[in-house]
Amino acid sequence: MQEVKEKRNMMNYCPDIKVFDATMRDGGLVNNFAFTDEFVRDLYQANIAAGVDYMEFGYRASKNMFKESEFGKWKFTSEEDLRAIVGENKTPLKISIMADAGRTDYKTDILPKKDSVVDIIRVACYIHQIPLAIDMIEDAKAKGYEVSCNLMAVSKVAGEDLEAALRLIASSSVDILYLVDSFGNFYPEQIANLAKKYVEVMGDKQTGFHGHNNQQLAFANTIESCRHGVNYLDVTVNGMGRGAGNCFSEQLLSFLKNPKYSALPILDLVQKHVLKMKADGWKWGYDIPYLLTGVMNSHPSSAIKFIKEGRTDYSWFAHELMEMD
Amino acid sequence: MQEVKEKRNMMNYCPDIKVFDATMRDGGLVNNFAFTDEFVRDLYQANIAAGVDYMEFGYRASKNMFKESEFGKWKFTSEEDLRAIVGENKTPLKISIMADAGRTDYKTDILPKKDSVVDIIRVACYIHQIPLAIDMIEDAKAKGYEVSCNLMAVSKVAGEDLEAALRLIASSSVDILYLVDSFGNFYPEQIANLAKKYVEVMGDKQTGFHGHNNQQLAFANTIESCRHGVNYLDVTVNGMGRGAGNCFSEQLLSFLKNPKYSALPILDLVQKHVLKMKADGWKWGYDIPYLLTGVMNSHPSSAIKFIKEGRTDYSWFAHELMEMD
Repeated sequence: MQEVKEKRNMMNYCPDIKVFDATMRDGGLVNNFAFTDEFVRDLYQANIAAGVDYMEFGYRASKNMFKESEFGKWKFTSEEDLRAIVGENKTPLKISIMADAGRTDYKTDILPKKDSVVDIIRVACYIHQIPLAIDMIEDAKAKGYEVSCNLMAVSKVAGEDLEAALRLIASSSVDILYLVDSFGNFYPEQIANLAKKYVEVMGDKQTGFHGHNNQQLAFANTIESCRHGVNYLDVTVNGMGRGAGNCFSEQLLSFLKNPKYSALPILDLVQKHVLKMKADGWKWGYDIPYLLTGVMNSHPSSAIKFIKEGRTDYSWFAHELMEMD
Repeated sequence: MQEVKEKRNMMNYCPDIKVFDATMRDGGLVNNFAFTDEFVRDLYQANIAAGVDYMEFGYRASKNMFKESEFGKWKFTSEEDLRAIVGENKTPLKISIMADAGRTDYKTDILPKKDSVVDIIRVACYIHQIPLAIDMIEDAKAKGYEVSCNLMAVSKVAGEDLEAALRLIASSSVDILYLVDSFGNFYPEQIANLAKKYVEVMGDKQTGFHGHNNQQLAFANTIESCRHGVNYLDVTVNGMGRGAGNCFSEQLLSFLKNPKYSALPILDLVQKHVLKMKADGWKWGYDIPYLLTGVMNSHPSSAIKFIKEGRTDYSWFAHELMEMD
């Protein structure tokens, strides 16, 4: 396996690569999970036609912590809502849900795999939640799922702490460890070094990458991580995701040389649905305030607020960010 | 020098790096060079305040080939129009004009340096024009200028032809050779290999990079070329340039660690002028049609036409591009 990784270049056909669509989960943070059933069905069909390997439908958030009346249904992604779209999912596309550490009643709400159409549970956590995340990983693994750990905000973690955290996670039953650039802070040079570290720590297990487009580097960082052996690559249709959004499905599918992939079904979906979403005022994608929070390694919430308020005093916003740091 | 290049990383302070603003030249292709004098003055002042090293005001196109009535004045960039903005230019900012091979009456229209406020002549050419470009380079050099050669559309040039072309240019009196990604086709992995080749061929002379943002890789490719020793880095304010545009000034200035650079004056210029340009309908920047021409290594003109016509049938456009190839 290591030998394959070393030889990887952009002309290769790499059957190990998995394209992972997170449109509804990260994009749900844009529109509070208010996707129409028609959109969800069309996205599911488009992903199958495009050769996408995984589709994440949303979070499975705790109904004790979050009121159902305040969110679209993909904040909770119940088994019934999933089956209404995918039936028994007799397709090659695998189904994912995300379980946030501290926000999921995982012991009760994650069903045994035999009772669920879900294939993979992605456990998202911050570094201080690793013991909890490992409990969630072991729970999901024991129930029969493929399991990933998406360790967020690592651009805030000092070097030696990160190494220890990665080794803890790697020693669990987890299948995949994600390198997550939550704040869109990393440059490709840093992603290369981190990807090598994640791949090395995980040994024969898998690694993934989830980027944000604050500096218009989500795609560049995704293919950079891939060059260094990362196989699970997150994308969203038209980059839809919180703040600056993510790596565009249509970019990565156009780049990959595996003949099973095609960007065309995603382009049709953009034409049919996404242009209207944007015309209706759903906002995501690169803009100067996201560049600034990315460069400053800061949570995008202040940039989202800046844009929502219609402000354009960019250099003053830069000063505000320095004050906050 | 080679030793410095090898050690270059993103934390370094690299005094050899030159930030080159091409907003009016590449952006002029968006608005037919119809910049207001107020904008030009504010851009000039913003570049000085931001620590930008060079500012290109436009082309010096032949008035025998192009009618003055059909273009803004920066298509021709006369000495008088330049001096109306910069006077004697008693600043550290160097002044550039571009001379297109086959479209410039260079023997008469490029004045001796002692009679001009221009510092650098950038000669743009395609590979079949190299003998002409070398005549232009020697002419400008003999007149006393710093001279660059911007060899365009190299993503269409087969490997051995490119090597021969680079060696021809390197053996002229040229000071700087630019790697130009005219169609936004190259990935960072390819830029790394090309940058190493350009740097090696040029020896003790300089190299530059000019990207296009078709695949949202203009910034990533710019910093990748820089890692491999390329020193002259083209940017435009808010990425303004033909089609998908270029590397954003505000991205590169935020990235560079040289304390003389600041993105803040550029952010103020965006707030004051660029938002209005966009509201007035001047169009540039990443969009799906540019992604497709970039991936297909095709001139952006068909994508510009597609967008101008208000079409959104992206996957059909992809089919059309394959037919054209």
